[in-house]
Amino acid sequence: MTQSTTGRRAGGRAARQQARQRPSVERVPFITRSMKPFEVLSDDGLATIEENADTILEQAGIDFRDAPDALELFRGAGADVDGERVRFPRGLARSLVQGTAPEQFTQVARNRANDVVIGGEHTVFAPAYGSPFVHDLDGGRRYGTIEDFRNFVKLAYASPYLHHSGGTVCEPVDLPVNKRHLDMVYAHLRFSDKPFMGSVTHPQRARDTLELARIAFGADFLESNTAVFSLINANSPLVWDATMLGAATAYAEANQAVMMTPFILAGAMSPATVTATCTQTLAESLAGMAYVQLVRPGAPVVLGSFASSISMQSGAPTFGTPEPALVLYTMASLARRLRVPFRSGGALTAAKVADAQAAYESANTMQPTLLGGVNFVLHAAGWLEGGLSMGYEKFVLDTDQLGIWHAFAKGVDLSENGQALDAFLSNEPGQHFLGHPHTLASFETAFYRSGVADNASFEQWQAEGAQDAAQRANAIWKRTLAEYEPPPIDDAVDAELREWIERKKASFPDSNV
Amino acid sequence: MTQSTTGRRAGGRAARQQARQRPSVERVPFITRSMKPFEVLSDDGLATIEENADTILEQAGIDFRDAPDALELFRGAGADVDGERVRFPRGLARSLVQGTAPEQFTQVARNRANDVVIGGEHTVFAPAYGSPFVHDLDGGRRYGTIEDFRNFVKLAYASPYLHHSGGTVCEPVDLPVNKRHLDMVYAHLRFSDKPFMGSVTHPQRARDTLELARIAFGADFLESNTAVFSLINANSPLVWDATMLGAATAYAEANQAVMMTPFILAGAMSPATVTATCTQTLAESLAGMAYVQLVRPGAPVVLGSFASSISMQSGAPTFGTPEPALVLYTMASLARRLRVPFRSGGALTAAKVADAQAAYESANTMQPTLLGGVNFVLHAAGWLEGGLSMGYEKFVLDTDQLGIWHAFAKGVDLSENGQALDAFLSNEPGQHFLGHPHTLASFETAFYRSGVADNASFEQWQAEGAQDAAQRANAIWKRTLAEYEPPPIDDAVDAELREWIERKKASFPDSNV
Repeated sequence: MTQSTTGRRAGGRAARQQARQRPSVERVPFITRSMKPFEVLSDDGLATIEENADTILEQAGIDFRDAPDALELFRGAGADVDGERVRFPRGLARSLVQGTAPEQFTQVARNRANDVVIGGEHTVFAPAYGSPFVHDLDGGRRYGTIEDFRNFVKLAYASPYLHHSGGTVCEPVDLPVNKRHLDMVYAHLRFSDKPFMGSVTHPQRARDTLELARIAFGADFLESNTAVFSLINANSPLVWDATMLGAATAYAEANQAVMMTPFILAGAMSPATVTATCTQTLAESLAGMAYVQLVRPGAPVVLGSFASSISMQSGAPTFGTPEPALVLYTMASLARRLRVPFRSGGALTAAKVADAQAAYESANTMQPTLLGGVNFVLHAAGWLEGGLSMGYEKFVLDTDQLGIWHAFAKGVDLSENGQALDAFLSNEPGQHFLGHPHTLASFETAFYRSGVADNASFEQWQAEGAQDAAQRANAIWKRTLAEYEPPPIDDAVDAELREWIERKKASFPDSNV
Repeated sequence: MTQSTTGRRAGGRAARQQARQRPSVERVPFITRSMKPFEVLSDDGLATIEENADTILEQAGIDFRDAPDALELFRGAGADVDGERVRFPRGLARSLVQGTAPEQFTQVARNRANDVVIGGEHTVFAPAYGSPFVHDLDGGRRYGTIEDFRNFVKLAYASPYLHHSGGTVCEPVDLPVNKRHLDMVYAHLRFSDKPFMGSVTHPQRARDTLELARIAFGADFLESNTAVFSLINANSPLVWDATMLGAATAYAEANQAVMMTPFILAGAMSPATVTATCTQTLAESLAGMAYVQLVRPGAPVVLGSFASSISMQSGAPTFGTPEPALVLYTMASLARRLRVPFRSGGALTAAKVADAQAAYESANTMQPTLLGGVNFVLHAAGWLEGGLSMGYEKFVLDTDQLGIWHAFAKGVDLSENGQALDAFLSNEPGQHFLGHPHTLASFETAFYRSGVADNASFEQWQAEGAQDAAQRANAIWKRTLAEYEPPPIDDAVDAELREWIERKKASFPDSNV
């Protein structure tokens, strides 16, 4: 049992928090949305963007740098290759993608009950990715370590509302750059049994990820199933570079999934308008996805979009502003028209701590994420400081919001019980429903129960320490880690993973490059 | 000029905050949305709710308590009146409303540039309403006073993103209950020139409000124009009582607008489901709106909905949960089908302070508010603690979000400049757009500029005092009040208002009933 953090009122508050820890929405491996996505543009508007993306691909072109194999593939497919610049006859990139890329695919998890479907009406939540720093209320902001990394894998595993273990949940800066991916992949395989993401910082590290996946899932199984899903970023504007393409190639050759994602700070890496940012994102991602289909036709590939605005005064990235929300809705529509899965969104913020700015900005991206119909949501929990920091308290607050989306996505219950007509006709006007049999029967499941919100009276809240949401979240992540138990793993598989990693680490010197 | 609150780096931070104070979106008297609302139910689902509402009106009926005139009107219109219970033949309430109620109307402001249109694609933001307490970081939580009331009127007047001065922006608890409405209405008329709301706590106080409006706008003018818009709450479930009906009657007879609003904590005042809560809200509001149309056919009337879930453990109201969001989207659709303006939403939260809970919960209601297409948004800024407290910092944080909605509602710019095709074709792949002529030309207006978000680096933020969003908001409301200047008013009108109020106050003893 947990202890009350205030040391008194052990029954009241601790019991309430305990009750709130139980998931209040049925645990599912991923969300299936019941509503039509929100649209911000007409079909004509979307067609204009598609036309313009074709114009960019045809006239401006895309650079594929230090990637002679890619140039060769594009030349063979009918593109105009001039040095490292690839220009696509109108419609070519689209037809390469639509010819063979799947509309949706399943990413297999170590625990098959956690398999996720990427695409269609489905939405999958994964933790934030890539921050060099971590933040919590006790230690403040500091460089991430492998212990932090494992903590966030454990927290994601423990959350009923995260479907995916993610990838670089934080950078384990205490480990050498050229070997840390081995400990990261191991942590996902050992401390979670949800699906995970592979290393992309070097093609060899992608191949190492695949070797570990072959041990965990079986080499034969991996030939015909997708168990690794990885983030490939463009070097916007209009450039794909060798490191990312090399990782994408390794994964695609092995039939593993990649999300081809322009990462755009609009006004810097793209013109400072919503339409232009969407046009460029579509052009860049189309070129990247076409490349993947040339490497291995039919390999699962996802249209990715990450767009933020910048402060036109300071150049700093800004989040939760209206323009990136419009980009997100528009890109989601374009992905549907293209019939490929879509990655975007997340609980994005420039805030340094888990305050009102953090929550407002995160909500302003997560609402379009769900209502626009994103299929894979990286950065769904923990993100702070424009991605520079992974926040423990932010993680708890964000996952609570993900629970809300589980309940919302189910939509309105029109069943007989939902309509409750008998309740109305058996209850006098003026008589409350608290004690009505219909209410009593719905007691447990009627409404979403937050794990972190305080709904008590001001006086009770004050008596319990007047804690803000971040302070309450602090107690929750600590309790979650204290209560964490790892999922089972076959001892022989675990031993083989460890031995392979040890052999690999011993085979070349540490380096921070 | 303002001073830096940290006493150093006076140039950097103060200048940035100064720049951010300028509205970053063109100031408009109200929002006109450019997108189709988000829908959570099909037409069939909505029709089911309408059918069930008719069944409630027909079989359960609505009580009109201590209101013999209302019973007489309903009897005359063909309803079945049994004691105080009114049962409506199917379709009667709907046809009374649709027969004469306007689809939209204009509420006139003292400054005609601030007139608002209520209905259609328009959205009007007003401050929070009705809290006995106020909260700020310096003074904590305390009872509201007339000084607080005036402060919030001034803050709403100063915000480019609030269209309306609201009503009971907090209770001035330092004034006698039976006279405070006079100072409240005067504050709206004197310290703002935006449209405002009238008193509803007693029919006589509604008539006093109308007298003051006649002085401010002219009695003849008021005969044919709507300058007062007031909140009439049902006493759910299925009851309208004499106090509220009396106020509604006074306003409707004077052709002034009312919003007929069931205030429902689902699970207590309605069965604990989304569909049932919508059904009951529709039935109650239909009965209330039908009453208004019987009092004066054609008087402007609004379908109101306020719904929160409750904690099924403690009974406490909860906000930002998924079920009330579904109620809001559904009710917005039902109001559109009924062809009447719709009031709902707001920056609602159970949080005691302006923390992450406050922001997340507020966003979870404000997003449906805008995307669902609410026409009049009470509680758009300041609300804390389930409406028990009006927060100064929360007010600042919320109005900043309202600015975001102004930019979002305009939608995607597909103009030639928005498409920026020339920029793409004059820029090499790999070359950033920061210095491109297209970007430089968009410098000032490209992206929404928050007045309170901190987008600086962690190091800069730390050097400037490591303030969270609430602390930054604290400085902003103080500066706004310090810089406040009242709008002009005709001296004769002002004198007449003051004299009328003094005479009125002197004509009967103070009372707190």
